[in-house]
Amino acid sequence: MTKIKEFTYDDIMSFELRYRAQFINSLLGFKSIGLIGTKNNLNQTNLAIFSSLLHIGANPPLVAFISRPDVAERHTLENILSTGFYTINQINETNYEQAHQTSARYDRAVSEFEAVGLTEEYKNDFFAPFVKESNIQIALEFKEKIDLSINNTILVIGLIKSVSLAENAIGSDGFINLEKCNSITVSGLDSYHKTEKLKRLSYAKVGKELTEIS
Amino acid sequence: MTKIKEFTYDDIMSFELRYRAQFINSLLGFKSIGLIGTKNNLNQTNLAIFSSLLHIGANPPLVAFISRPDVAERHTLENILSTGFYTINQINETNYEQAHQTSARYDRAVSEFEAVGLTEEYKNDFFAPFVKESNIQIALEFKEKIDLSINNTILVIGLIKSVSLAENAIGSDGFINLEKCNSITVSGLDSYHKTEKLKRLSYAKVGKELTEIS
Repeated sequence: MTKIKEFTYDDIMSFELRYRAQFINSLLGFKSIGLIGTKNNLNQTNLAIFSSLLHIGANPPLVAFISRPDVAERHTLENILSTGFYTINQINETNYEQAHQTSARYDRAVSEFEAVGLTEEYKNDFFAPFVKESNIQIALEFKEKIDLSINNTILVIGLIKSVSLAENAIGSDGFINLEKCNSITVSGLDSYHKTEKLKRLSYAKVGKELTEIS
Repeated sequence: MTKIKEFTYDDIMSFELRYRAQFINSLLGFKSIGLIGTKNNLNQTNLAIFSSLLHIGANPPLVAFISRPDVAERHTLENILSTGFYTINQINETNYEQAHQTSARYDRAVSEFEAVGLTEEYKNDFFAPFVKESNIQIALEFKEKIDLSINNTILVIGLIKSVSLAENAIGSDGFINLEKCNSITVSGLDSYHKTEKLKRLSYAKVGKELTEIS
């Protein structure tokens, strides 16, 4: 018999800081994760893992992530603000340990690409580095930063300038089969998971049975 | 041999609207998904699926979601703004088809709970309804809405007031084992996936090998 427990706000605020971070970070479910690649004006590259990627809209194609008030991640934000460009690179079963290692607090002069053993890739004169070992690579132009004063985090919004992926992972309706791309997901701060498709479901309409999309 | 294709911004903007929605919605990886439960001041309940859940911070515990300029979802936003409270309820292998059906455009007078066959649950005088069939239930107080003028979406930020889940899914370090809760994830607009854990990895430090956390 599974015992359900209710935690109140006061319970949660009384948790030890790292315990609370694990608990709250796990709570909303599996998350979108990727490696953000940047370069500063001295040609030093930076690579950092973010599990706060957010789809903002498709028309135009906009995505966001949350930058925390945290030294390690600020190299990413600083490079984006000073150069205007960055990449988001998918994490898969073969590179997630290297991806996780980018969260260590390397000095500014150290490129996480080199430190963790991932390969910088440049394409079509785009300023920021892609991760060669990623199966989905997105080039972005910085558009807007919104300060969330409620907890001093920053929402960073970018416009998709290009996307590279295997052509055979794209369905006839535009859907990308992430399992064909070996994409994985994360829960909490440090738990990595592969996936197994249950079903694709048809567009929901009132009074109409859902059907499976093959 | 897998052929990699690059799509430019112009390619993407030339996609047919629904094709582009599928493509861009799939791109960032697997997403956090949940059912948002609300009630208006006439005691009419509403339930809607959102795949744009975002962890904002743990101290204090804040989460956000994106509300689109879209009639169906606006019942949720209107109820949150007029009453100040809502719930986020996890989706699992047994309720995801009902959860998906909540995205149909039901009239305001119709409760999606009843329409799709999920059960309202009330606890501790909290105003908004929980989903009885969800294994993780979160009560939230509305804190802030931020208009993203770049595409007329709205970021809605709430403070976690309580969390209910099975006690035995919580590890000694606060990590919640989502697989024990039967939580699932989504890719794109309509593809549901269960997960299989690869590894939990230790906190990354410079010059230190990662180890597996059991």
